[in-house]
Amino acid sequence: MPSKVRLYVDQPLAQGQTVPLAREQANYLFNVMRLTPGTVLSLFNSRDGEWDAAVAHAGKHAGSLTVTARTRPLQPPPDLWLVFAPLKKTRTDFTVEKAVELGVSRILPVQTDFTNAERVRGDKMTAHAVEAAEQCGATFVPEVAEVQRLSTLLDRWPEGRSLWFCDESRVSETAAPQPTAPAPAAILIGPEGGFSETERTRLGRLSFAQPIRLGPRILRAETAAVAALSLWQITHGDWR
Amino acid sequence: MPSKVRLYVDQPLAQGQTVPLAREQANYLFNVMRLTPGTVLSLFNSRDGEWDAAVAHAGKHAGSLTVTARTRPLQPPPDLWLVFAPLKKTRTDFTVEKAVELGVSRILPVQTDFTNAERVRGDKMTAHAVEAAEQCGATFVPEVAEVQRLSTLLDRWPEGRSLWFCDESRVSETAAPQPTAPAPAAILIGPEGGFSETERTRLGRLSFAQPIRLGPRILRAETAAVAALSLWQITHGDWR
Repeated sequence: MPSKVRLYVDQPLAQGQTVPLAREQANYLFNVMRLTPGTVLSLFNSRDGEWDAAVAHAGKHAGSLTVTARTRPLQPPPDLWLVFAPLKKTRTDFTVEKAVELGVSRILPVQTDFTNAERVRGDKMTAHAVEAAEQCGATFVPEVAEVQRLSTLLDRWPEGRSLWFCDESRVSETAAPQPTAPAPAAILIGPEGGFSETERTRLGRLSFAQPIRLGPRILRAETAAVAALSLWQITHGDWR
Repeated sequence: MPSKVRLYVDQPLAQGQTVPLAREQANYLFNVMRLTPGTVLSLFNSRDGEWDAAVAHAGKHAGSLTVTARTRPLQPPPDLWLVFAPLKKTRTDFTVEKAVELGVSRILPVQTDFTNAERVRGDKMTAHAVEAAEQCGATFVPEVAEVQRLSTLLDRWPEGRSLWFCDESRVSETAAPQPTAPAPAAILIGPEGGFSETERTRLGRLSFAQPIRLGPRILRAETAAVAALSLWQITHGDWR
C-alpha cells in the first residue's frame, strides 16, 4: 500500500491548480488522517493522471489543496464492462471493489428475471468504487451505470462489444474452454439463482455472447466475477 | 445452488451405513432446515464421494441418517496449496471460502515478518471451509493446516512442489507473465504490508519459486489469492 494519502477528486488537475475540498474530503484529510498544511498527497480524477498536491488550507469542515506536479500519467483500464446482478450488500460491495482492483472501465448493475434488486444504491456503489481506486493505486474510477433490466441492456448492446457470460447454475453444461473476447468486451455474471429460461435462450442466440466455464465446482456470483475478470485480463487485458 | 441440503460428515459413507449426527448438525438439519424423517439429503466426507441419505431419526439435539446410494464419485481438487498470511477476519474468511470454491487441496496460514497473526483461529477456518464446500457442490474439504512461520514452511518445502508468489507491494517490479507451475503446486500470497527484505531475498533465490504479476494495479491480498488461483486453475488445474 502506498503510504501517501490518495484522493479522488472530481476537479481538473494541472500545475498550480487550487482544489477546493468538499466537507467529507476535508473531514477525511484533516480529522481522520490528520494532515496539516504543507503535507503532500496524491490526487487523481480519471482524466489527468496522478498529481502531487500540498495542503494549502486545512479547516475543520473545509480546506483546499494546491496541485504541484504530475507523478503518473492516466492509466485507464481496458475497455471491459462488468455486468452483474446485485444481491446481498456485502457481496455487492465486494464485487465492485474487486472489479476496480482487477481493472474494468464500467460497472453495470442489471436486474434479471431472478434478481431482487429493488434496493440497488448506485451512489453507494460509486463511493465504493472511488474508495477501491484510492486504495489500489488506480488513476481511474469506473463509472457505475444506473441499474437497468438485462433485457434492455441486451436490446441496446453496442455493436462490436463481445460478451462472456457465466451461468453457474449450469456448471456441467457449459464446456467452452478459453473462448476469445477481445476488447471492447463485457463480462456478465448471473444472479445466485441463475438465469431464467428466457434469458438463457436469448443469451445462447446472441452472436456476440459466449458462455464460459469456470471449473467443476459452483462459484458464488462474486467469485465468478473475480475469476472471469482475472482470466479476461490475462488473456486480453492489461495483465499480459 | 442445489436445493437438496448438502452436509459434510466425518464418517464413512457406504450403502446402508448409519450416520450419527453431532449436536450442531442435528440442530442445523432439524431446527434450522426443518428436515423430517424420510427426507433425503446429500452427504460427503472428502473420501467416498457424494451420497444420498435419508433422515432416520430426528431429535432436537441428536439424530441419525441412513445412507442410501452414491450420487457422485469423489472429485478431489488438483494438488494445489494456498499459502497465505491471514489478516482481518472478514478478508480471511473470504479467502478461505474462495479457495474452496476455486479448488485447492490444502490451506496453509502462515506468519510472515509483517503479519499480525496471533489470533488465527484454525477451527474457524475449517468451519468456513466446510460451509463453502457444502455450498459449492464440492465433494472434498481442503485441510486447514496449523499456522506456522513462513520461514519454517520454506525450510521444509516438499521436493517437486512449485510455488507462485505474489508480492503486491512491488507490482511494477515483477514482470514475469504466465510462468508455469504444474501440480503439485502452491500459491503464496503476502500480507498487505508485503514481504520483508529477508523474505523477498529468500523467495527470489528459491529454485522452485516464481514471482507472478497480476496487472498494473495493487490488488488486496484476498483479490490476489482469487486471481492467482483462477489463473493457475485455467492453465494447470481442473478448469482446463
